[in-house]
This record gives sequence, structure tokens and C-alpha cells, in this order.
Amino acid sequence: MRAAVFVEPGRIEVAERPDPQIVQPTDAVVRVALACVCGSDLWFYRGQTPYESDRPVGHEFIGIVEDVGSQVGGLHKGDLVIAPFAYSDGTCPHCRAGITTSCLHGGFWAYGGMDGGQGEAVRVPFADATLVPIPGSGHSAEMMRSLLTLSDVMGTGHHAAVSAGVTRGSTVAVVGDGAVGLCAALAAARLGAERIIALSRNPARQALAGEFGATDIVAERGEAATEAIMALTNGVGVDATLECVGTGQSMATAFAITRPGAMVGFVGVPHGVEVPLQTMFSRNIGMHGGSASVRTYIPELMEDVLARRIDPGRVLDFETDLDGIGEAYAAMDQRRAIKSLVRVASI
Amino acid sequence: MRAAVFVEPGRIEVAERPDPQIVQPTDAVVRVALACVCGSDLWFYRGQTPYESDRPVGHEFIGIVEDVGSQVGGLHKGDLVIAPFAYSDGTCPHCRAGITTSCLHGGFWAYGGMDGGQGEAVRVPFADATLVPIPGSGHSAEMMRSLLTLSDVMGTGHHAAVSAGVTRGSTVAVVGDGAVGLCAALAAARLGAERIIALSRNPARQALAGEFGATDIVAERGEAATEAIMALTNGVGVDATLECVGTGQSMATAFAITRPGAMVGFVGVPHGVEVPLQTMFSRNIGMHGGSASVRTYIPELMEDVLARRIDPGRVLDFETDLDGIGEAYAAMDQRRAIKSLVRVASI
Repeated sequence: MRAAVFVEPGRIEVAERPDPQIVQPTDAVVRVALACVCGSDLWFYRGQTPYESDRPVGHEFIGIVEDVGSQVGGLHKGDLVIAPFAYSDGTCPHCRAGITTSCLHGGFWAYGGMDGGQGEAVRVPFADATLVPIPGSGHSAEMMRSLLTLSDVMGTGHHAAVSAGVTRGSTVAVVGDGAVGLCAALAAARLGAERIIALSRNPARQALAGEFGATDIVAERGEAATEAIMALTNGVGVDATLECVGTGQSMATAFAITRPGAMVGFVGVPHGVEVPLQTMFSRNIGMHGGSASVRTYIPELMEDVLARRIDPGRVLDFETDLDGIGEAYAAMDQRRAIKSLVRVASI
Repeated sequence: MRAAVFVEPGRIEVAERPDPQIVQPTDAVVRVALACVCGSDLWFYRGQTPYESDRPVGHEFIGIVEDVGSQVGGLHKGDLVIAPFAYSDGTCPHCRAGITTSCLHGGFWAYGGMDGGQGEAVRVPFADATLVPIPGSGHSAEMMRSLLTLSDVMGTGHHAAVSAGVTRGSTVAVVGDGAVGLCAALAAARLGAERIIALSRNPARQALAGEFGATDIVAERGEAATEAIMALTNGVGVDATLECVGTGQSMATAFAITRPGAMVGFVGVPHGVEVPLQTMFSRNIGMHGGSASVRTYIPELMEDVLARRIDPGRVLDFETDLDGIGEAYAAMDQRRAIKSLVRVASI
């Protein structure tokens, strides 16, 4: 099969890879229809985290079940499925507690010899537990885009909101205007937040944040952003901050704008972050989050996507096919695109 | 009046200080009956944090209202009151949210020219909001000790449990066998925790932890403690960890034993702690806590103390008078005492 692989920083190319086969009786093989590029993929693309040459890439995809192992009961050839960005057995204590990314037997696409999502097919372990069948058929292209975001960004934005304790009536700040940040604003609105302050200096992203439910836009950064948000909240700070970047500056801003007693929900992979522990202690500001258990969230979010109550697929503002994978990365790297869709096969 | 002051590391002595007077119409002057020494007082006693010579000390006390300002409405001369370790106006946005330690106009005893609690009398700002009258009279010495712990350690232990999300049926670990750690075990039991693992290598403290509700004792430290707790929890980790020390090792243990998705409630003042952010991210372990808003907790905890459902005063296992203040510190410093009671005046 053909699949995208990392060559060197700045170079993602399509290469020939072995066709996935059923190895365990609980496996499925999924023929990928739609994949996308994640903000976290840019870390290795930019050479900021190590990545091996010829290793496959990608962890977000929707596809059609092509084959199932003998112990797979809930899936059948031809089913349209969403794959969360991690596979999990669904039965270990951590899966039962909903933290599927800590599954004792689970793992991640493109790690440890697994196929990547940006390719023609993927072997999926624990297929019954990992994959979520999409009900109905004939979904529109727009609907398919929104369903695709449930593999990562929409679930991750939701995780930020849940981890920060967003509830009906909350005043929320969203740090980060990438796809996850935009989805976090949408998630906060979905959970009933009354006021959503989005930090963004990009007009197109500001506009989408507003359509997703942001009530206020702060274009400043650093201390100026903190001052602007404190002014918007009468000097109090926000009830919940959704940190969707993971840099030292974004985290510092997140803690500075959170009201005493409240939480920072963080989902941006931390790079060079120093946690302000004395501030957390003296002001009782907590932090919770991390690698989102999107598998756990897919059913409830999918219900709202299918009912057209949320349309997170709008973050996918660039489209190409598998041969255009290099351009899919470049567009995001250069911030020409919020998030790139890769149409691997028509369904 | 006579009040304890810091002379130099290892030397706390009684000195003559000005008699407190009403300054603001919202002030009260409280004649101190019982005070105590806090584990956090040992930081300056040991010279580990800076402290000015002749500065008063102490932040936990119970006493009798001696005088009130013209705008104090809910307190009267002769009332027996508990003072939380911070004063607060009760009306600012942070107080209204229950985070009284972040009061916009509040502060702490023995800071910024305020009297310390280890002395004969204290001027109390915002007396109506700060002080909590104790109903009834003729309370036993044991009851008075338990009421005294509501000024800090019992409320702080409760804060650890609340911040960590302890609920009915939780499996909880308590890191730290000081007065706060022991009160944290008691608080976890009060909140319905099913299993409470106390880390302690001191037989007397192990025994008291057991009487407070600990179901398991782990005497190991560091990695051996982690292994023991993972074995006790079938490799899963605990649902909530109450970190009541604040050192690098105690915090590292706290994160190592917490199950994915769960919280570390931290109330030990952090010293030399490095937050394991990558672990927090990959395992979704959160942290919340800090300087406890004990004022907020006093009413509900006092109800249980007065009904004899909890007896946190048992952590006060050393008693002296104001002249014995040096020995009160030394006994705790040398771990001869869990916590020292200072009987300033008989009531």
C-alpha cells in the first residue's frame, strides 16, 4: 500500500509500505478514507522532536472496515468507522475508568511498528474497543469532516473544557487558536459557558472562534493579553482556562488569567514549560488534562455532530489527496491552513 | 501584651508588644486562649525561609472577643471565636467564590505588621467575616483542641481531600504523617473514602492515622513506597492522592502512585519541587490545592466536631504555656511532637 512517511524535517512523502494484515484475532484492517494532519505532527516536521526516517505518520482517520479477526464481534466488513488517535483494549482498569490513552495494552498509531493514519490502510488492534461505527450512510462532505475531527481535535478540545471544569454559565478563556483551541471554544459553548474569551490575532481564526461561540476576542499576547482579560473580567480572572498550545508563554498566560480556585485544562503537548507552582499554591489554581481519551468522548460528541448541533469540521480549511501530503504539512506549518484534510480514498 | 517573636533560627521567645487596639470600625480585638504551632512555622524556625527578627509568629488561635469596632455587628464582647489562619473581608469576588485566602483586602497573621497568633491578643480585621463564633459553652478540653484545629490543620487536610476529588468509595493515599496529613486522612474518611493508605514510618502516627480512618499503612519511602502502593492497588494506583509535605520527594511519590485521570490534592507548601509535567500530560494526572480557604470550611467541619463525629484535636500531643513557646517549637522540630498546643490563657 501507499502511505506517508517522515523523510527528514520538512519532508513528508508517500512511500510503499506492506499491506496491513490481521495479526491478532481482535484486529481489524481499515481502508482509510479521510485523514488529517495534527498540530502535534508539526513538532517532528519542524525537527523539534526526534522522528525516525521512513517511519509512517498520522493518527487521525476515518475509514471502511476491510477485514476483521475471528474474535471481532461488533464490526463488519464495509462498516464506516472513526479511529481515535490511540487504540485501547476497553477492558483494563484505566479503560474502564475512561482513560483509554493509558490503556495497559494500548498504544498510538505510527508508534512501535504500527501503521500511521496518513496512508491507505491501518491494522487496528482491539478493533471492537477502539473503533466507533458511524450510523447511517450518505453523509455529506461537511458531515464527514466533522466526524473526522472526533478522532482527535474535537475530543481534545472537549477534554480541555472538561478538565478545566467548564459548566453552564462559566466564563472561559481559550489560549490557542489552532484547530484544538477552536474546538475547545466550541466545546465550552456546548457545555453551556456563558462567556468565551478566545485569544487570537488571526482574522480568519477570530471569525471561526466567534462562529463557534467565542463572545470576546483578545488579540494581544503575553502580559498585554493578561491585562486585557483581567479588564474584561473586572480584575477577577476567568472560571476556567483551556490551554491548547503547550509553550512556556501560553502556559504562563493561562495561569495569569485564571481566577483563584479555578482550573487550567491543558491539552497542548508541553514543550519548555515551567509550572508556576508558587502561584498555583498561593492562588489555588489547579491544572488537569493531557493526552485526551477521545475514544471515551466519541459517542456523546458524535450524537451532536450527527444532529448538526456542532460542526467542528470547519477547522479543516485545506484539502488535498495523499500525493499532496507534503503540501498538507507545509500549509499548516506556514499557518496558511488551520488544519489539513487528506482525502485518501473516495467512499 | 506578651507575644512570641522570632529572634533567630532555633530561637522563638516571648517579648513585650503593643496592646492591640481597634483601628478600623470593622476590627475586633481577640484575647487569645489557645494557640498552636504549625508545621509551616518550622520553615523559618529552621532558617529555611527568611524571617525578620522581632517579628511576631503564629497563625492559629481561638480566643475571646475583647473589643469590637463600631461596624461589627455579629460579634460581641465575650464571644468565643475561631480565627482562620487568614483574615478576609467576606465580600470580594474571591471571598464570595469561597477562596478567602485570595481576598483582595485580606492577609495573614504576623505579616505586614499584623499581630501573630502566638501571643496574648490579636487585632482582627473584617471581624464579622473572619471570625467564627463557637456555639455553646463549657466545652471540654478535648473539644477545644479539636475546635482549635479548624483554624488551620483540619481545614487544610480537608482542602487536600476536596482538591483531590475524594468521594464516597474512593481509594486514597495520604503522603505525609504530620498534623495536616493525619487530618487529611480523617477528612478523607469523613468524605466516605473506602480505602485510605497512609504513608508513615512513625508508630505513634501510624496508630493515630489508623484511628482517624487509615485502612493501610505504608512505612516505605520513595520508590519502595510507590511499589508498595501499586501492589496494594493491583498496579492501578489510587483515585486521589493527598500531598501534605511539599518536598520534591513527597511530590514525586504523589504523582507516581496516582492512577491515570486522577488528582493530586496538594497542601504542603512547596519547597524544591519540580512538577513532572510530562507524566501529568501522558497519564492525565492533575493537581489542585494550595493555601486552604479554611474560613469557608469552618462551619461544616465545626458541626462535625461539636457532634463528636470527628476529633482532629488528637493531633495536638504536646502542651505548654506561652512561656514554653520555645519548647513548643523544639518538640515539633525534633519530631517529639506531632503538633504543639500553646495554652495562652485559661477561659
